[in-house]
Amino acid sequence: MSERNRTVPRVGMVGGGQLSRMTHQAGIGLGVDFSVLATSPTDSAALVCGSVTLGDDRGLDDVLAFAKAHDVVTFDHEHVPEPVLRAVEEAGGLLRPGRAALRFAQDKLRMRTRMAELGAPSPRWRAVTTLEHVADFAREGGGWPVVLKAARGGYDGKGVWVVADADQAREVVDRAAAEEVPLLVEDKVAFSRELAVQVARSPHGQVAVYPVVETVQRDGICHEVIAPAPGLAEDKAVRAQQLAIEIAQALDVTGVLAVELFETADGVVVNELAMRPHNSGHWTIEGARTSQFEQHLRAVLNLPLGSPRTNAPYTVMANLLGGRDPEVYRRYLHVMARDPEVKVHFYGKDVRPGRKIGHVTVTGEDYQDLLERARDAAAYLRGDDQ
Amino acid sequence: MSERNRTVPRVGMVGGGQLSRMTHQAGIGLGVDFSVLATSPTDSAALVCGSVTLGDDRGLDDVLAFAKAHDVVTFDHEHVPEPVLRAVEEAGGLLRPGRAALRFAQDKLRMRTRMAELGAPSPRWRAVTTLEHVADFAREGGGWPVVLKAARGGYDGKGVWVVADADQAREVVDRAAAEEVPLLVEDKVAFSRELAVQVARSPHGQVAVYPVVETVQRDGICHEVIAPAPGLAEDKAVRAQQLAIEIAQALDVTGVLAVELFETADGVVVNELAMRPHNSGHWTIEGARTSQFEQHLRAVLNLPLGSPRTNAPYTVMANLLGGRDPEVYRRYLHVMARDPEVKVHFYGKDVRPGRKIGHVTVTGEDYQDLLERARDAAAYLRGDDQ
Repeated sequence: MSERNRTVPRVGMVGGGQLSRMTHQAGIGLGVDFSVLATSPTDSAALVCGSVTLGDDRGLDDVLAFAKAHDVVTFDHEHVPEPVLRAVEEAGGLLRPGRAALRFAQDKLRMRTRMAELGAPSPRWRAVTTLEHVADFAREGGGWPVVLKAARGGYDGKGVWVVADADQAREVVDRAAAEEVPLLVEDKVAFSRELAVQVARSPHGQVAVYPVVETVQRDGICHEVIAPAPGLAEDKAVRAQQLAIEIAQALDVTGVLAVELFETADGVVVNELAMRPHNSGHWTIEGARTSQFEQHLRAVLNLPLGSPRTNAPYTVMANLLGGRDPEVYRRYLHVMARDPEVKVHFYGKDVRPGRKIGHVTVTGEDYQDLLERARDAAAYLRGDDQ
Repeated sequence: MSERNRTVPRVGMVGGGQLSRMTHQAGIGLGVDFSVLATSPTDSAALVCGSVTLGDDRGLDDVLAFAKAHDVVTFDHEHVPEPVLRAVEEAGGLLRPGRAALRFAQDKLRMRTRMAELGAPSPRWRAVTTLEHVADFAREGGGWPVVLKAARGGYDGKGVWVVADADQAREVVDRAAAEEVPLLVEDKVAFSRELAVQVARSPHGQVAVYPVVETVQRDGICHEVIAPAPGLAEDKAVRAQQLAIEIAQALDVTGVLAVELFETADGVVVNELAMRPHNSGHWTIEGARTSQFEQHLRAVLNLPLGSPRTNAPYTVMANLLGGRDPEVYRRYLHVMARDPEVKVHFYGKDVRPGRKIGHVTVTGEDYQDLLERARDAAAYLRGDDQ
């Protein structure tokens, strides 16, 4: 507890990325005592946070010491190994979400098994270790292509391979075997678009769910989010929100859960889970009464949750990806000058091609117009005009 | 310039209060390199800011060193003495606003003189040193009461005295003489309500003006702000905005200028000026596309200004003032639980009766409803129910 006001809880976030950075920003308003465990003083969150612990954000010693120094610990990534989480909890550290929930976000095999138990709509899937398994799976279903996934460690398109035939599958299977990465295979879902939904759940069991959004992905990276998903049928929207709530409850998630979904002709299908603020929820900073970052803090601190109501008919978020030019500041000024309503969020990261260095958000009535403006800003910043 | 990305400017804010705290919050999104000069590590901004310089935020040595370490320096208060500002500018420090502008916010006699030169509507006023001066002023005008003001050092109702007769005036005049505080006297304006307007101006000369708001004051302290001011006649609103722009230009203000006004039957009358983000503009965090804090940073950094457009028909802000109970956290939870749409901003300050420890904001359609909800939150937190 803080020396100054002993009733204000101390919350620590493991990982110094942009999710911690934006959670810090939300924590300032809440007035909570927020710290980050970062690996470097130039990590996105470490650059701006008033209380930074430097250390190994995946290692037992540093995570344990961090947990002992805080009333509650949460995460900006899923990469703390399960044995570390277990040891910290056994030593009395309060993790939210806890190990028992996080393991479903850390391991896609466990996740798929659990989704099947819950009856959550999922693609056909199977654990595989050999090329024969993959070929059998393809033959028994709709044939090639199929999707191979690393069960652990993948994010942002890494660890996911759409393979068109046995030759392509062999390459992935051989590499996975060499690196001892467990694999699963899934049907390539014939989706009309990708959706996502955020739900927050507190230890009290209070939940707050945000509108279902459309995520526009290219090359496995989220480029834009449109909130709410335009033209989404009411029954699909409600089903997606119910699914998110059911999963959060069944898995005993505390904090924000992001459920990524495929929309198909028949309904929605669960693609991925993340138990933290998520790129598909950045729109909530401007677009909702309570941002996902504030909501995550309220949830992990067992505070009453805030309203997830939207502030505008539509909100569009576009990720800012680095281009070839590392000097981005001048381009940034032009983005501001061109559209005074665009809200820019910069993460303080060095620019590398394809790296997420920030995002922009625009709110308004006409999502096509908002999408165009958000894309313009992102394209200009990346240097696509040159 | 930062070692990491030399094109991102370093901005420093003198003073560690809640205005710096909320400016830091806005700076995180902008991705600028923001530091604060605070007197104590427990100052409101120092608790949360990633880069804090401890020192005397009114003294030459520390302000000068701070200015040399930053590309541009701005202020969360008006209390840096003019000779210090002058010396820093002469040594090459870049102050925004600069000394030439700030002296009009620091000295009410200079301000009134300048407003008269500009033809800005003002109450009748006069510099006074004796009781006879005050009595003469009252006799020549509408009689008692009149308003006595300390020309320098006053804020939040301190340094302003409404005196009902010569006896009351004598007390103030004698104390001011003993403390060598220059005084002015003003007519007590027969106002229908108090208004305020924020304008931002960049060194380029770009300006952005916010809607005129109503400020509800009690005992010289701002309790609530309603944005925009309900039922304000269009011509008065436009006049107030024009006045703010004219004053910002004439005084060469860079950053945010807050103009506090009286509304009278005939129009609007200038009451006070502040050249920084101001309590009457806190509503912009949720209520406008660009908050006054982001706008202030954009202005002092000579970035293109953001849109001041409102996000909702009405936004109401209520200040949270400390009550007798220093343990406020439990009450705070109830405020959150009672109204999930109330946005709470806590400043991290120890609770003292009457001290501004935070504010709440609510946005919506019906300002009476919003005002009631904001007042409820503030009253509950203060402990008025007990």
